[in-house]
Amino acid sequence: MPAPQEAATSTPLGVAVVGAGYWGPNLVRNFDAAPDWDLRVVCDLDADRAREVAGHRAADVSTSLSETLARDDVDAVAVATPAATHHAIALEALRAGKHVLVEKPLADSVPAGREMVETAERLGLVLMADHTYCYTPAVRKIRELVEEGALGQILYVDSVRINLGLVQPDVDVFWDLAPHDLSVLDHVLPGGLRPLGVAAQGADPLGAGSACVGYLTLPLAGGAVAHVHVNWLSPTKIRRMVIGGSSRTLVWDDLNPQQRISIYDRGVDLVQQSVDSADRRSASISYRLGDTWSPALPEQEALAAMVAELAGSIRERRRARTDGRSGLRVLSVLDAAATSLRARGALVTLEPVEQPLEIVR
Amino acid sequence: MPAPQEAATSTPLGVAVVGAGYWGPNLVRNFDAAPDWDLRVVCDLDADRAREVAGHRAADVSTSLSETLARDDVDAVAVATPAATHHAIALEALRAGKHVLVEKPLADSVPAGREMVETAERLGLVLMADHTYCYTPAVRKIRELVEEGALGQILYVDSVRINLGLVQPDVDVFWDLAPHDLSVLDHVLPGGLRPLGVAAQGADPLGAGSACVGYLTLPLAGGAVAHVHVNWLSPTKIRRMVIGGSSRTLVWDDLNPQQRISIYDRGVDLVQQSVDSADRRSASISYRLGDTWSPALPEQEALAAMVAELAGSIRERRRARTDGRSGLRVLSVLDAAATSLRARGALVTLEPVEQPLEIVR
Amino acid sequence: MPAPQEAATSTPLGVAVVGAGYWGPNLVRNFDAAPDWDLRVVCDLDADRAREVAGHRAADVSTSLSETLARDDVDAVAVATPAATHHAIALEALRAGKHVLVEKPLADSVPAGREMVETAERLGLVLMADHTYCYTPAVRKIRELVEEGALGQILYVDSVRINLGLVQPDVDVFWDLAPHDLSVLDHVLPGGLRPLGVAAQGADPLGAGSACVGYLTLPLAGGAVAHVHVNWLSPTKIRRMVIGGSSRTLVWDDLNPQQRISIYDRGVDLVQQSVDSADRRSASISYRLGDTWSPALPEQEALAAMVAELAGSIRERRRARTDGRSGLRVLSVLDAAATSLRARGALVTLEPVEQPLEIVR
Amino acid sequence: MPAPQEAATSTPLGVAVVGAGYWGPNLVRNFDAAPDWDLRVVCDLDADRAREVAGHRAADVSTSLSETLARDDVDAVAVATPAATHHAIALEALRAGKHVLVEKPLADSVPAGREMVETAERLGLVLMADHTYCYTPAVRKIRELVEEGALGQILYVDSVRINLGLVQPDVDVFWDLAPHDLSVLDHVLPGGLRPLGVAAQGADPLGAGSACVGYLTLPLAGGAVAHVHVNWLSPTKIRRMVIGGSSRTLVWDDLNPQQRISIYDRGVDLVQQSVDSADRRSASISYRLGDTWSPALPEQEALAAMVAELAGSIRERRRARTDGRSGLRVLSVLDAAATSLRARGALVTLEPVEQPLEIVR
Repeated sequence: MPAPQEAATSTPLGVAVVGAGYWGPNLVRNFDAAPDWDLRVVCDLDADRAREVAGHRAADVSTSLSETLARDDVDAVAVATPAATHHAIALEALRAGKHVLVEKPLADSVPAGREMVETAERLGLVLMADHTYCYTPAVRKIRELVEEGALGQILYVDSVRINLGLVQPDVDVFWDLAPHDLSVLDHVLPGGLRPLGVAAQGADPLGAGSACVGYLTLPLAGGAVAHVHVNWLSPTKIRRMVIGGSSRTLVWDDLNPQQRISIYDRGVDLVQQSVDSADRRSASISYRLGDTWSPALPEQEALAAMVAELAGSIRERRRARTDGRSGLRVLSVLDAAATSLRARGALVTLEPVEQPLEIVR
Repeated sequence: MPAPQEAATSTPLGVAVVGAGYWGPNLVRNFDAAPDWDLRVVCDLDADRAREVAGHRAADVSTSLSETLARDDVDAVAVATPAATHHAIALEALRAGKHVLVEKPLADSVPAGREMVETAERLGLVLMADHTYCYTPAVRKIRELVEEGALGQILYVDSVRINLGLVQPDVDVFWDLAPHDLSVLDHVLPGGLRPLGVAAQGADPLGAGSACVGYLTLPLAGGAVAHVHVNWLSPTKIRRMVIGGSSRTLVWDDLNPQQRISIYDRGVDLVQQSVDSADRRSASISYRLGDTWSPALPEQEALAAMVAELAGSIRERRRARTDGRSGLRVLSVLDAAATSLRARGALVTLEPVEQPLEIVR
Repeated sequence: MPAPQEAATSTPLGVAVVGAGYWGPNLVRNFDAAPDWDLRVVCDLDADRAREVAGHRAADVSTSLSETLARDDVDAVAVATPAATHHAIALEALRAGKHVLVEKPLADSVPAGREMVETAERLGLVLMADHTYCYTPAVRKIRELVEEGALGQILYVDSVRINLGLVQPDVDVFWDLAPHDLSVLDHVLPGGLRPLGVAAQGADPLGAGSACVGYLTLPLAGGAVAHVHVNWLSPTKIRRMVIGGSSRTLVWDDLNPQQRISIYDRGVDLVQQSVDSADRRSASISYRLGDTWSPALPEQEALAAMVAELAGSIRERRRARTDGRSGLRVLSVLDAAATSLRARGALVTLEPVEQPLEIVR
Repeated sequence: MPAPQEAATSTPLGVAVVGAGYWGPNLVRNFDAAPDWDLRVVCDLDADRAREVAGHRAADVSTSLSETLARDDVDAVAVATPAATHHAIALEALRAGKHVLVEKPLADSVPAGREMVETAERLGLVLMADHTYCYTPAVRKIRELVEEGALGQILYVDSVRINLGLVQPDVDVFWDLAPHDLSVLDHVLPGGLRPLGVAAQGADPLGAGSACVGYLTLPLAGGAVAHVHVNWLSPTKIRRMVIGGSSRTLVWDDLNPQQRISIYDRGVDLVQQSVDSADRRSASISYRLGDTWSPALPEQEALAAMVAELAGSIRERRRARTDGRSGLRVLSVLDAAATSLRARGALVTLEPVEQPLEIVR
């Protein structure tokens, strides 16, 4: 029945943004500017804050979640409240028949996140994780290159995200910064982020009460490895991810706008040879020293692409590109990292996040 | 009795270089050019190779270690043979009354290294590790800055040494590259490299038979941490060490000859306040955003400074700046890393390398 | 009589922004946000555009300059219209007793600019050139360093401002980009920009009708030289000015936020010696290879500092830091450059811009 | 008669190096190592210096040019003496039937250089300019790319060669550094370096007796321009040439070994439209923002390639890639620059360097 769907495409969907703190204003601005969306409500317990964030826009302001969810003109809810409240708000919204976008991290525990995912799937609603980086032109290009096989098989990923950060006593550097790296890994690794285990090393040399310097090691299938360095104490700012492949290696330097992505056709090849001599292996190694290539990237705001994807997934009745299970995989790694940290860096295995049995709706 | 000592200063010492392979020619060249030294013998089992390395120099060529050690005009022996032979050669040389310089790593096992160190100390002879990087102008300046307190207390060290390397089946990337980082750490950390443990994560995604990508985490006293990333598969070459201190942070970028060392007067301060409120800790954090400073460094060949130090330690009857115990500390960390690697990255504690009870001779 | 002045300090001044095109909105935003100012009017011939730029602010909208100037609550007028209209608007505003801020370039001819400057001085009113770069933290620091003698005597200045620019048929690359470099030169050179002449070389290899690549050479007193390279056809963006001094050299790299200013204590010294030998001069040259230093710079919007300076100069009855004569000096160089361009690069001398005989008012 | 030629290919040619000063040792080392050449004589008025440069090699040492030229086993002479002596030595060598390689600059005056070129052509001998940079892998690749049309039509070239240099009273910065840039320009511009004129601006702010900072502007056919900035007083070292083309732009950054050449598929296109409206030109401009590409370059010593080219040109009886006329074109520009400098930067036209009527021999 294509006619109603086409009608749906041309009529904007209605959205409520819940939470008018740090991130809410960005969501408000992008939903308001998007042709796919009508911003209906800005909802916050603090009415003044909600009013301020709504500004001169046509949206209503509310301090009541239940009233917001009761509205027929609200198709989706974007949750930008503290992580501890995601579970309750998202479940209430889903049960009210609303599609839900949730700020990272998906929830504050794996069981809570799992319940959110399963509820959404059971009800045939979209649950989407706000993994903003995945909607940047750079990460979209990386995913495209990995998918088309430009890098070959992925051998290692090394991600560094360091700068002078806001030392917080209640959140450590892993929960603050690593979700960015992990969500990108989940997006670009074939099949998503499914490490064989997680080892985390952290340091709190200031005695601030939580780790300010952190290292994550994630062994991957086939002998590969991903490693993440997050650091709040670095005077220089680095945001760089290296994805080493069997064919090519990609470097994403997010702070170099003139050459954000470079693809190096350089590497080491191991050619298996069936000889008997002891030096079989060393004989079979060869080096490539080829060209470097840097693709042009469009200028595009990531959040605009993300709210469009949310609308697309609702209208086309499909999983969102960064769906709830993606958020759950990232959450599972963070959770395992916390366990490893308490165990002095021991490798912790994860309960796998399965693919859903059925497609949404 | 200053007179004989002065005489000693003016008469060059005699040295034999044992091993004419990859590193030997560099030692031969530097000993030959040094005013402190007379190069007496180039010794190698392969006479042709020894002759080639000796070149037109006045040195003799020998294929016999015992004949070399029997010579009265040889005061010291520089050992540049494979690691597995260091122990036997060094002990024979020490027992012949010669001072000994040993290529890194000091030995192929901790007990072997320990015996070398203890023998040298018992006999009152200099045993020196060829930690060449420690004699570069950059590392000497770093040590000086740490010693004078310019960085304050060290909070973290992050070292990256990656490039397209020679994949070797018999040596992994830790033993190939990390000795450089570890010897520098031993040199610049107050009291030397004495980590509370070692955790090592490695990957062999090519199936080459040994780790090509490696990460070392070294918890240090006082909540600090050192971390080393070594990698043979990186298409870009990075050699950078960040030393984060409570007062300032130093970045050593060895591939930037125009600004090899930068000192950032930026950081996070945690001011302890004795208040009862719940947000005590967050209130007590402040940020510094001060100047950056890059000291001028002299142009100097590290090996020339190293052979001068060997002469100085022999003449002044003192421990060399990178003495045997320094080599032993580096070896102990490498050994513990290998153990951790086999234990899937578990934190391995080290038997401490004690300071010697008596000063040499 | 300090009392009224203090009162004046606490009462905001009234301003009208004339011209709601490309630059006007920035002025509107900054005047509106400044504690020193009340934005009274946004004036543009196009009422819709004026309304759009005024937005939700308390300012009135007008399409009439004379009505705007007739208002008692307007103390100053900011002119952001096309250059050809600056002269007429500024003179009308000055004659109405208003202080005037003018967008760069000051006017479209030197006589026009000169009349504006002289009228303002005769009437005791502030005429200020909107040389925005001069109010950035970087340029303010450069001026400070030059003034305190940190660089010694200035030997040369080399400025490069290149990127893929908007090729325009009616304005060449000199008039589009060089005012930035020239206004900074005027700000940091002791005594302002007073070259002995101007030579300009331009190229229009696309046949676009105006130069897209341009070079300015400005011989300065004492054998020094300033040189400016502006280019609309460069695929890479460079904004770098080198100021070579007899004591130190400063590099301003505006696209490197982590180290915008570097001061190198490196250089060549020429020590005059009174000897007779033929090689007197080569013998008297020596080199310094000292440290590099990068001062921390505050984060500050330049336009906010500029509107504060406008208020300060009006209240304190003094010349503005980038006063009309500064704008006139920049204009004179641009005008001479156009003459040189027509004369195939011949050196053109300038009529000097004298300092005013009396201080304003 | 191919047989003798093949024989010639297998028998090394004999060469004498005349001049054992700064550059001579490099020539001696490369000729000695080349399979194409037998180094026969090192000739210098100072016998000790000649002996020292010859070292342990099989070459003879001579203080007599005429004796050197009288030898039958010398096929070619490499002249590395001061520029003022090139003319006399080269003519004597040519008249003795020897092929000649001359250090840059070709001679100290254009008539002298012209006589050298014409004599060589008349006698059917190779006269080659030692434009070493033209034999680097980077410049060879640039020439290749220009030739195959990868850049389109060349619109501008901007070359910067600055560092803390050896201030010399008898040679200015143009003669010291610009020959490198000019020889590369001559090599890569289609048809060689044939500017419509030369304008030179220099400054001697130290009062050293010769220009330490210099700018060359070279208008080219078709509205294009080349510009060269040379500077002895820069604390930072830059060696970068930008070649802007109608299709792509190439950046050669010789101090970035990891990415020496970058080709940007970005630029401005001017599409000619035959419309009557006034804004025809602005309407017809479009921008490309394509990929960046960096070709892999082999590791090769330039001088080795140069001595091979000398042998090749002699054996194949053809013009050398950097022949005498190439050296003459560079010399003509330097000479015109000196004239322009004395005329305060006025544009000076050059007598064209014609192509020879006949091919060599």
